[in-house]
Amino acid sequence: MPVNLQVPAREALRPVPGVEIGTTMAGIRKANRRDLLVVRLPQGAAAAGVFTTNRFCAAPVRVCREHLASSGGAIRALVVNTGCANAGTGAAGVENARRSCDEVARLLGCAPQQVLPFSTGVILEHLPMDRLLAGVGAAVAGLGASDWLDAAEAIMTTDTLPKGASREVDAGGRRVVVTGIAKGSGMIRPNMATMLGYIATDAALPQPLLARWVREVADLSFNRVTVDGDTSTNDSLLLLASGASGVAIADDGAPGAAALKAAITEVAQELAQALARDGEGATKFITIEVERAASGAEAAAVAYSIAHSPLVKTAFFASDPNLGRILAAIGYAGIADLDVDRVDLYLDDVHVATRGGRHPAYREEDGQRVMRQAEIRVRVVLDRGEASTTVWTCDLSHDYVSINADYRS
Amino acid sequence: MPVNLQVPAREALRPVPGVEIGTTMAGIRKANRRDLLVVRLPQGAAAAGVFTTNRFCAAPVRVCREHLASSGGAIRALVVNTGCANAGTGAAGVENARRSCDEVARLLGCAPQQVLPFSTGVILEHLPMDRLLAGVGAAVAGLGASDWLDAAEAIMTTDTLPKGASREVDAGGRRVVVTGIAKGSGMIRPNMATMLGYIATDAALPQPLLARWVREVADLSFNRVTVDGDTSTNDSLLLLASGASGVAIADDGAPGAAALKAAITEVAQELAQALARDGEGATKFITIEVERAASGAEAAAVAYSIAHSPLVKTAFFASDPNLGRILAAIGYAGIADLDVDRVDLYLDDVHVATRGGRHPAYREEDGQRVMRQAEIRVRVVLDRGEASTTVWTCDLSHDYVSINADYRS
Repeated sequence: MPVNLQVPAREALRPVPGVEIGTTMAGIRKANRRDLLVVRLPQGAAAAGVFTTNRFCAAPVRVCREHLASSGGAIRALVVNTGCANAGTGAAGVENARRSCDEVARLLGCAPQQVLPFSTGVILEHLPMDRLLAGVGAAVAGLGASDWLDAAEAIMTTDTLPKGASREVDAGGRRVVVTGIAKGSGMIRPNMATMLGYIATDAALPQPLLARWVREVADLSFNRVTVDGDTSTNDSLLLLASGASGVAIADDGAPGAAALKAAITEVAQELAQALARDGEGATKFITIEVERAASGAEAAAVAYSIAHSPLVKTAFFASDPNLGRILAAIGYAGIADLDVDRVDLYLDDVHVATRGGRHPAYREEDGQRVMRQAEIRVRVVLDRGEASTTVWTCDLSHDYVSINADYRS
Repeated sequence: MPVNLQVPAREALRPVPGVEIGTTMAGIRKANRRDLLVVRLPQGAAAAGVFTTNRFCAAPVRVCREHLASSGGAIRALVVNTGCANAGTGAAGVENARRSCDEVARLLGCAPQQVLPFSTGVILEHLPMDRLLAGVGAAVAGLGASDWLDAAEAIMTTDTLPKGASREVDAGGRRVVVTGIAKGSGMIRPNMATMLGYIATDAALPQPLLARWVREVADLSFNRVTVDGDTSTNDSLLLLASGASGVAIADDGAPGAAALKAAITEVAQELAQALARDGEGATKFITIEVERAASGAEAAAVAYSIAHSPLVKTAFFASDPNLGRILAAIGYAGIADLDVDRVDLYLDDVHVATRGGRHPAYREEDGQRVMRQAEIRVRVVLDRGEASTTVWTCDLSHDYVSINADYRS
């Protein structure tokens, strides 16, 4: 059961002028489910992406990087399948990813380098190319309305519901739209989550600006969410600018640039939080704030140490204020000179530990009250400097084990 | 259910001449269970230890380090309680650990600095000093027979059974005994596991030699086992030499030194493997071998990345050969220049992946056959150098979640 997350209303996901969407049921892995998405962008559109840091990156990730470089980001289409990750598939997998792009390019009349391929699903299996190529034809035939809810459904794996978010921005007196979708609920961890994310705007942005923004936005959103600490082979976040609004954002100082970037960041954060809210087996949504660290990296190390601890996560699941487990996770976060006698811990408004030990006024029932909530904020004050960070995660439940034990069945 | 692990026969855990054991039911946390252990060593005995790397180390760990340093390892007694970790307890916790040592020293007629305190159990709670000090009196009154099975029972937390191992060695024509016990099944990860371990011999060793041996033995045993990646606040491994056999081992070249060190290592490895076999909720015992790495640290990083992956561990639990998850874990182990096209993966005798992709001859039913076994060997060949390592772990089951959700109830 996702935590405080609903299927977006179809009309809430605003169409992005210039961006066309087509989906189909290609039967990649299972029959009768939407599993293939083609996105068409207009002439003059720009795209930029960030991808998994996993060295076993999937074949489509390799091809994406190549095509973005060789086309200079002048992308005309995306092709995305769920059900098979096309990872751990060697040279044949790369060839299959290329063939998918070739087919889309042939049908749309663009260069193969202007098509980006994406896959998600089971690793170590080859794409069923007959079904995939037939599906590409069907999805292209259906291109038209910018229906982002259909697109969000077509990329789901163990997600319990489609994820999307949308904003409208006033950019120098003209309306610009930002709409994004994402998938992912397991094998989620920063750099990146097991996720595919696509955020589109109808503003026009030069590709170098788009490339910088997508990195900065990812660091404030998808790189701050974790479910199980497993970094996927296929993670990709794409930022697309169709230009169809006629609003051109040349640089950070352009009228509307700040508002547009803020809207993109909000959409990305809403999507990233949705991944944790719909984390496999999640029953709680946890926000971890680490304050007064000596550096951002140190703050992140502490936050992820807490967020990845199976013991902390099972305590959240059980609503058990066994909060010493959080102190233990802080202690093994790898800060060699951490002075634990300066560390304070809060659970929402409850002051649990001060100067490294149990707070004299802390009462079990106060911890218990917060632990029963569906949304919990953990706040750690290290008293070492001025850096801080926030990470979102979920608890570890019986259903996480069930979902991942049964994933392929 | 522990994997291929039984309660040791009482007679299999050989008494160590010179070492006396006393236990009692002190009611630290629960009534009617053995929860306090006192070990007495003779005049002239030596002790050395290795302790948790967690910065939130428990009060007894701080006091152990102090007392080992100030006494030069001339230790006369250990006092160990289960039920309360005395961690996250600030200055009052350190004072309580000292008071425990003071009481043992008073009763046994030695200096407080010659007593080492150990605690395991719930973090962020204070020791119940009245019950603990009364228990110390009872345990000291019961000192005598070197009954290691009683001792192993007295230090258990979520362990389903007591853990011990024993060897006899011919050291230059004279018999020397090595007996060890350990506890721990969750919050287990290298450097160190949430574990307490005590290994004693009746040989005589100078303290500096003992101190080097305990580090080397830990690196080949307890630092190679992981259950959930949580490094405890209380981990301690102690190596004790009573000298009662009259066999003196002055250095590594002494007659019997190699045999004795090998026996200590065997006992430590058997105990370390027992922790994983009795890992919380374990249904499978997994051995992960990483070969041909560029360095030992790199081999360990890959092995632990696999051993800590919740997705890999749930696949083992489900007997599901979803082996791409292992490739993904190799890929995010942090080796920046890993060439995945040189990586091979084996599951026992089954060649799963070669040169980074699915092996052409790999058949799902072969992977399925191995995954159904209670003991599974994962072998990764990186083809980058000559370093290798072995790590032991277990699967992640529903019972892990149940045990840790209910730990304090």
